[in-house]
Parts: sequence; structure tokens; C-alpha cells
Amino acid sequence: MTAYHIFTPDDALRFADRHSELFGDHSKLSAVEFGDGNLNLVFRVSNDKGTSLIVKQALPYARCVGESWPLSTDRARIEAEVLQQHGRFCPQHTVEVLHFEPALSAILMEDLKQYQILRSELVKGKTFAHLASQMATYLAQTLFYSSDFVLSGSVKKAAVARFINPELCLITEDLFFTDPYCNHERNTIHALILPRARQLWQDEKLQAEVAALKADFLSKPQALLHGDVHSGSIFINADNCKVIDAEFGFYGPIGFDVGSLLGNLLLNYVACPGLFAPAQAEQQQAYLLAQIRELWQQFASQFSQLMACETQDSALQNSRYQQHFLQQVLADSLGYAGCELIRRTVGLAHVADLEKITDATKRAEAELRAIELGRALIMQRAQLPQMDAVLTLVQQFAL
Amino acid sequence: MTAYHIFTPDDALRFADRHSELFGDHSKLSAVEFGDGNLNLVFRVSNDKGTSLIVKQALPYARCVGESWPLSTDRARIEAEVLQQHGRFCPQHTVEVLHFEPALSAILMEDLKQYQILRSELVKGKTFAHLASQMATYLAQTLFYSSDFVLSGSVKKAAVARFINPELCLITEDLFFTDPYCNHERNTIHALILPRARQLWQDEKLQAEVAALKADFLSKPQALLHGDVHSGSIFINADNCKVIDAEFGFYGPIGFDVGSLLGNLLLNYVACPGLFAPAQAEQQQAYLLAQIRELWQQFASQFSQLMACETQDSALQNSRYQQHFLQQVLADSLGYAGCELIRRTVGLAHVADLEKITDATKRAEAELRAIELGRALIMQRAQLPQMDAVLTLVQQFAL
Repeated sequence: MTAYHIFTPDDALRFADRHSELFGDHSKLSAVEFGDGNLNLVFRVSNDKGTSLIVKQALPYARCVGESWPLSTDRARIEAEVLQQHGRFCPQHTVEVLHFEPALSAILMEDLKQYQILRSELVKGKTFAHLASQMATYLAQTLFYSSDFVLSGSVKKAAVARFINPELCLITEDLFFTDPYCNHERNTIHALILPRARQLWQDEKLQAEVAALKADFLSKPQALLHGDVHSGSIFINADNCKVIDAEFGFYGPIGFDVGSLLGNLLLNYVACPGLFAPAQAEQQQAYLLAQIRELWQQFASQFSQLMACETQDSALQNSRYQQHFLQQVLADSLGYAGCELIRRTVGLAHVADLEKITDATKRAEAELRAIELGRALIMQRAQLPQMDAVLTLVQQFAL
Repeated sequence: MTAYHIFTPDDALRFADRHSELFGDHSKLSAVEFGDGNLNLVFRVSNDKGTSLIVKQALPYARCVGESWPLSTDRARIEAEVLQQHGRFCPQHTVEVLHFEPALSAILMEDLKQYQILRSELVKGKTFAHLASQMATYLAQTLFYSSDFVLSGSVKKAAVARFINPELCLITEDLFFTDPYCNHERNTIHALILPRARQLWQDEKLQAEVAALKADFLSKPQALLHGDVHSGSIFINADNCKVIDAEFGFYGPIGFDVGSLLGNLLLNYVACPGLFAPAQAEQQQAYLLAQIRELWQQFASQFSQLMACETQDSALQNSRYQQHFLQQVLADSLGYAGCELIRRTVGLAHVADLEKITDATKRAEAELRAIELGRALIMQRAQLPQMDAVLTLVQQFAL
């Protein structure tokens, strides 16, 4: 067995060549490292015919901070296994894993070089008609088929244990639910919105609701989540989209994955007036609203259909219960979307949707909209019975 | 390491002697096996001075059925470790484990021969003023200190994995939440209430609520539960009570343990008119009502106090959230109490409280009260804001 060592481009090249037939016998291979940003080494290995694959290796520390922040390389196993599971349930929208080597914490996967990162495209004002329907399918399939509706008690319990992911979950537990609501040194807050951020630190009503959402994040293992469905984890082109980066995967509340995506679409929504001229902003917001409506409608419709036809546990085959369950998923999703809006504005990790707004005043206006919309979604999540009511609320934060 | 073998009384004697100093050097020891009923071998090992200990060994099958129902002996590890954990949090009300030997699936524990089984005492009409307050302490301490309020994410997640208990949980999942609501061959239903039982099989509104309670049992790992707090798992005397038999332990919803006890007190409550003459029945019911009130008040007060003073996670230190959490525990507890009332009447495992009623008509009346009260608790659990409202409801089922 090969012992763990940090890959050079040459190591990545040999790893890719060894575990794939794609390159053929006599390929001339080359490898180049390109950062994915935060936590890992990522290489593209290509042959001279234009075929390429990605090698992703987990480092024993967070790449963005350095060796002072140690992080278990077990996250590579989690990522590979989540992608493999999700790939079984929804191959068309999950990046394909070709090989995983536990000892090296290295994953060989398909190269999505024909795709772009969704966030970058949205920030440029690009639209994709298929985004919502495809992501609804991804979410419905991956979340339903890993849930108590399908898995027997013993299989589900073993899966929960296998996907226990304390280190990466802790990052979310802190950055999502704790830091934004107190004066934490990890927070990054632009000066113009500091007074509003300070109010969050005193907002006990809001904090009580966020605590409930955090408690569910800690103790509601409904399904195998991706755990980080933001618009930087979605690759998209004119025809298709695929989800990558599943190292935050674990068994958690279904609404967390749905809400993360919803929150990211809403971040772009509130940013539009700062990113674009008025006419384009209005158009882009109309596009986003329509996508959000479709995302929920398609997700709800597919998940309902799956519950009705594929539920194994006879006690859960009750249709009233299933309706109630879906209603609760909507409420949870709105709550987690609200948290995403807030933490991306006043927490550690910001998003390009807001950061690319060059005018500081306009950016602050967008950030304030993110906070107010986020707060409203969290506080009102149990009283918003349908997506239409949600969209009416969202439209109050168009400008 | 000793290989697993089924203990003879002599094996149990040597096991007890080897792992305890209690008997002294020159004791004359004797051992006798006495069934605890369903799943295990239980021996009492005594010396000639009157000192005694209990040896409990898990068999690789369910004792009550035989080798045709295999059951993992890992349940002995679960039982020993739950009792050890609970013993750390509440030693005064948890049976003491002196030694556990994994290879033999054998536990050496204190002998509670100065105690009686609570259910037998209640069926005889005995009352214990300290029952509610002591059990409230047991529940508050064991459930709080194993919860997200105290444990860090990584410790809690490891504990959830360590106490995954698929086989024993499956028994509850089936017998508690599924069988009573369908025409299952495992059910035992007395002829006089068969028409009412049949209605349960068609009661979709009730089944929807039971499904939600089952889903929480599957996916709400709030705390390390005992998992089987019925009145046969509680030993009691004039001064104290202690909890035994923790093999159903796992991380689940706090309301399940609280509700199991509540449900068992209510089973005795509805049985009183069948067990006793009218005056004594009235007296016993008044005792039970007062105990139920005190159980919840003391539990709520102690748990609130612990949340206020001992919560480690800063996001969960919010007092509004804590009030909301406790409110939800009450609703869950009422729901699980309702399930216990119903499954003990029309499911596989009946209770002496009802079975000891010799007059078949009176027994049927008591069983119907159990079903109706159980249904009311399940259906109304979210609309019963305080224990006083619960007690008013319960009193409608006195006769």
C-alpha cells in the first residue's frame, strides 16, 4: 500500500494514468496544479488528444490557512463516497468519480472543462433555463434515496455512522450558525453595514430561531446531504449542470441542501441592482424568481412522487404525513436559506455576487437587503405555506 | 481472552468472584439463574453473609422466542455502556455496573434485592411519594448531559455512532409505531376490543401523527436514551428508585424516554377501576395524577436550570430557544406516551396493569380508555401547552 505523501504534478499524472483507461496506451500526458481555493490540491491531467481528468488530493491541513489549521484527510473519503452515492442516485448531475485511493486521500474524477462555475456565470448576468429543473432532480433523487423513506433502519444507521464528519460539520456549525450572531474575530464586515451587523449580535428573537436551525443541523439526520450546495459547487453549461465538492457531506436535515441553493440564488437576487444596469437587473431578478419557483415546485413534485411510489417503511407511506413532511422541508429550507444570506454578508466567507459590486454604497445596500431578507425568511419560515408567498416576500427586497 | 460461551450458574459464580472484591476471600458462594423474561440469562450470585451481585449475560438469540430469533450480543455492550454513562450523570438512580466483559457479553452489577419492580407495586396499589421527583432527576440529568447542549460536535457525533443499536431499535420501530396500526400477526388483541383495534388500522389521521413520531425516533438523536423506561425497568423501595435494563439505549428524541414513563403511569391510571374497588381506584388515580404533574414540573425545572447554567454551545444559550425546546419535548413526550398506551393494548407486548384485571368487561373498558387517551395525546400533543391541560384531558379517562 502506498503511504500518504503530498502529490507533485508528476505524482498526480501517474495516479491518473494508473487508474484510468481513458488516456490510451501511448498518450503524452501532462499535469498542472490549479488551486480550488480553500482546502485541497487539484490537478488537471491531460493527454495530447485533449482528454483530461481531475486529481483532487486532500491535504492534512486547510490549504487556505496553512499547517496551523490541521484537518483530517478523511474528508477525501467522505467526498468520494458522497459523490459515489449521489452518482448512483443522480448520475446526470453528479461529477463522476473514477477512482478513490484512501491511503493517498486522492480522488480521480471527470474533468468538467466544458462547464463553468455557476456563481461566476450568474455574476456575469448569464442565465440558464435548465438550472432549476436539473438541480431539483439532483436534490430530490439524492435526498430521497438516502432517507428513512427508503433505507431500512440498520442500513440507514450504518450510513449515518459512515458519514459522520465532525471536522467539516464544525466549520458549518461555527460559520453558519454562531459567528454571524456575535462579535467574532472570524467575521468580515464592511464598514458601511457594521451598525446593522451589530444589531444581529443583540437580536435574541432571531438568535432563538437560528439556534433551532442549528440544533436540527446537529441532530436531524434525514438524508445524506451534499452539505455545501452553493453556486460555487455547481458547474453548468448550456445543456447540463453537475455538482462537485462534497467534502461537507453528512446525514443532516434535507432543508439544509435545498436552502443552501435557495440562499445562493437569493444572494444573487439582492446583488443584481449593484451588479447590473437597472433593466438588466430587473431581467435577471425575474429570471431568478422564476428559477426559485421552479426549483421548489419541481423538487416538491418529484419528492412527493418518490414518497408516494418508493417509500419502503409502511408507517411512512401515509400521504398526510408525507404532505406534512414536505411542508416542514420547505420551512427548514427557508430558514437555512436565510442563514446563508446572513452569513455570506457578515461572516467569514463572502461571495462574489456581493463582493463584485464595485460601488461601496450599492454593495452595502445589497448587503442590507441580504440581511433583511435572510432575517425575514428565518423568522417567518413556518408561516410561509407556499412558494408563492415566499416569492411575494422576496420581491420586497428587489431594490 | 475468554471465548463466548453460555454461562452455567457455576460460570456466573466464577465471573462474579473474579471481578468483585465484595465477597471477600473465604466466602461460600452460590449462584442461581432466574429469568428476567425476554432476552437474557440473569444469575444472582450470593455469599453466606448475604452479600449478592447480579450477572446478566446476553444470549445470541431472544430468550423468549429461541434460537430462531437471532439477536446480536452487542446489546450487552450497549446496555453496559449506557448504564455506565447514565451512572456517571445520575448514580443515585442508575443500577451500578461493576464489570463488563465484551467477549462474554456479560455484565456484573449490583443486586437490587432491597427493591421491588415498580409495575408490580403499582398493580398492587402501592404508592411511592418520591417516584416522580427521583425519576425527573434521572431523566433530566441523563438526557441533558448527553445532549448537544453539553457535548462538542465531535464528541456527540462519536457517541451517536457508538450507540447505534439497529437490532433493538428495530423492535421498537415495529412494535411501537407500525404493528398496532395494521393487522399484523404479531399483535395480541382481546376479542372484546377487536372492533376498536380495527378502527386503528383505518385511522389515517392518527397514522400520520404516529408516522411523524416514528420519523423522529429514527432521525432525532438529541440525547442518549435509556430507550425502554417502562415501569418494569424501574426498581423501587420506600427510599429510592433505580433504573435497569438499558439494552434499548441509543441516541434518540428526549421525549421518547419521558413519554415512555408517562405512558406507563397512564396505563396504570386507566387500569385502576379494573384493578381496585372504587374508593381505592380513585385514591390511586389521584396519586398518579399528582406524580405525573410532579414528574413533568420537576423534569422541566431541572432541565431548564441545566440549560441555563450548563450549556456549552453558545448558540444554544438563548433562553427563548431553550423554552421552545422544552415545549417541543413536552409535545414529543405526550405523543410517545400516547403510542405506549396504544401499543400495550393492541400490540405484541401487554402489561400487567391491564392483564391483571380479571373481569374481561372491565379489562376491555380499561383498554378502550387506554386507546382513546393514547389517541387524544397523540393528536392533541402540539395543542397541550402545559401539564395542567394534559391532566384535565387525562381526567376525562378516569372511568
